[in-house]
Amino acid sequence: MQIGFVGLGTMGRPIATHLLDAGHTLKAYARSPLDEPLASRVGRLAHSAGEVAAAAEVVFLMVRDTPDVDEVAFGERGLVHHVTPGSVIVDLSSVSPAATRGFAERMAARGVAWIDAPVSGGEVGARERTLSAMCGGEVPAFERVRPLLACFAQRIRHLGPAGAGQACKLVNQVVVALNLLAVAEGLALARHGGVEPALARDAMLGGFAESRCLQLHGGRMVSGDFEPGFALGLHLKDLRNAMRWAADLGAHAPALQAVLGLFEQAAAQGWGGHDHSVVARLYGADAGPRQPDSASLSQ
Amino acid sequence: MQIGFVGLGTMGRPIATHLLDAGHTLKAYARSPLDEPLASRVGRLAHSAGEVAAAAEVVFLMVRDTPDVDEVAFGERGLVHHVTPGSVIVDLSSVSPAATRGFAERMAARGVAWIDAPVSGGEVGARERTLSAMCGGEVPAFERVRPLLACFAQRIRHLGPAGAGQACKLVNQVVVALNLLAVAEGLALARHGGVEPALARDAMLGGFAESRCLQLHGGRMVSGDFEPGFALGLHLKDLRNAMRWAADLGAHAPALQAVLGLFEQAAAQGWGGHDHSVVARLYGADAGPRQPDSASLSQ
Repeated sequence: MQIGFVGLGTMGRPIATHLLDAGHTLKAYARSPLDEPLASRVGRLAHSAGEVAAAAEVVFLMVRDTPDVDEVAFGERGLVHHVTPGSVIVDLSSVSPAATRGFAERMAARGVAWIDAPVSGGEVGARERTLSAMCGGEVPAFERVRPLLACFAQRIRHLGPAGAGQACKLVNQVVVALNLLAVAEGLALARHGGVEPALARDAMLGGFAESRCLQLHGGRMVSGDFEPGFALGLHLKDLRNAMRWAADLGAHAPALQAVLGLFEQAAAQGWGGHDHSVVARLYGADAGPRQPDSASLSQ
Repeated sequence: MQIGFVGLGTMGRPIATHLLDAGHTLKAYARSPLDEPLASRVGRLAHSAGEVAAAAEVVFLMVRDTPDVDEVAFGERGLVHHVTPGSVIVDLSSVSPAATRGFAERMAARGVAWIDAPVSGGEVGARERTLSAMCGGEVPAFERVRPLLACFAQRIRHLGPAGAGQACKLVNQVVVALNLLAVAEGLALARHGGVEPALARDAMLGGFAESRCLQLHGGRMVSGDFEPGFALGLHLKDLRNAMRWAADLGAHAPALQAVLGLFEQAAAQGWGGHDHSVVARLYGADAGPRQPDSASLSQ
């Protein structure tokens, strides 16, 4: 199938590669030129998102935040001006659920389906085809693109109408942030109490405290290696979206509010470009070699 | 080996059974009479903890909290009055690290070793011999009792001197409480946002949000079945001990403070006897059939 793809960053590149491996051809648009070997497999990049839409019946988006999706879809040179009725836009980005409902409505008015399908599992999951895709939108359109999602996602779930995938992804990011906080505060307490954090982490694995964060991010906290992984600045963006969403819903979210504050604090230290496990440094819990730098992704 | 055992409650019973299965004989003391089949395998109960100490070179304790250990070990009819120099006391209870150091010193003065070996994994772990044992104390005494711990624990770790096992267990309980809170708040947010909590939980499993709590307690929250499991009142006891410990250490523990507040709130609702996953009810996140009752274990 001729597939459109907008956004070939850290996540977009491995995902596009899997689609190519599955025998599809891509018409892609990206802000930066591609490196080899992807560059020669993709061929000439489109000059705009609109050009991508004109060439494909399914268009994937993988960009940073809500305004980026808005620009790509509805901006001056956006998808909306060239998209064919009957086609499907699959937004893999992690953005606002409310805005997503608006995007879906505006595209529906042109006969185009919108599936929100943000993913969890990070760059490693994208490379290893073990992502979880959390999907929202009309079921027939979802069923149409499911085989394409299966090229890079292991777990594919339909959660409800447009925006439901984004809602679930925000929930996911809140849970991850709190699990990270649990490990960061726990290991800091251990250290204060005279127990080697590496030993405490090891002793807790296999018990009720077990989590993907204790395993993966706990290891990073213990070693003090905060190379991403998933950048704190990106996770902060998700937590801000989650907080706005919770406020709009009138939902009680005291733990989210607390962890958002800690992430803001970490970003203010200039750690936005480090792996999100760097929040442990707020507790002085690492003896890692890296210093805060100014190359922060956080705004 | 003739082993002493004090405290045959929810956790003590399956642990004692595994020691018997391994071919050891028990001299046991418990406040309540035993049910069959354990009663006939254990035989006549001792009249006091002291009587247990007189009959065994290794004595296991599995009681509720610090004052209970103090009473059993140093009370009027306690171990200290009959214990043989060269023997080892293994405290499986989850109690204060600082008090544990005091217990160890007082017993050391009588030539008796004290190993703190609190466990994680709950009643299920105790039945299935998959507990994690977090140990503190002198290494030779630890090595002496390690084969006995292996009768019921899968993961046995030595964390440092007396109290280090208790310190690690408190850390473990803090991490579990925060992981529970993450799932409770996350599923409540999903529900508010129109996503079925059961679907959200399922979609998140396998991603970075994965945890033992999402798997086990998330399932309980979704079904609204809060039969313990591990009682909220017992977990609250651990969190209070952790908060005192953190305060004594001068450690920064904002997340612990927040989650302790939520557990206190849940206990005040009369939910102390329910499984600790009942904290989800603070968010109104369950449609379960159980009502708060007065049979609360929390003080």
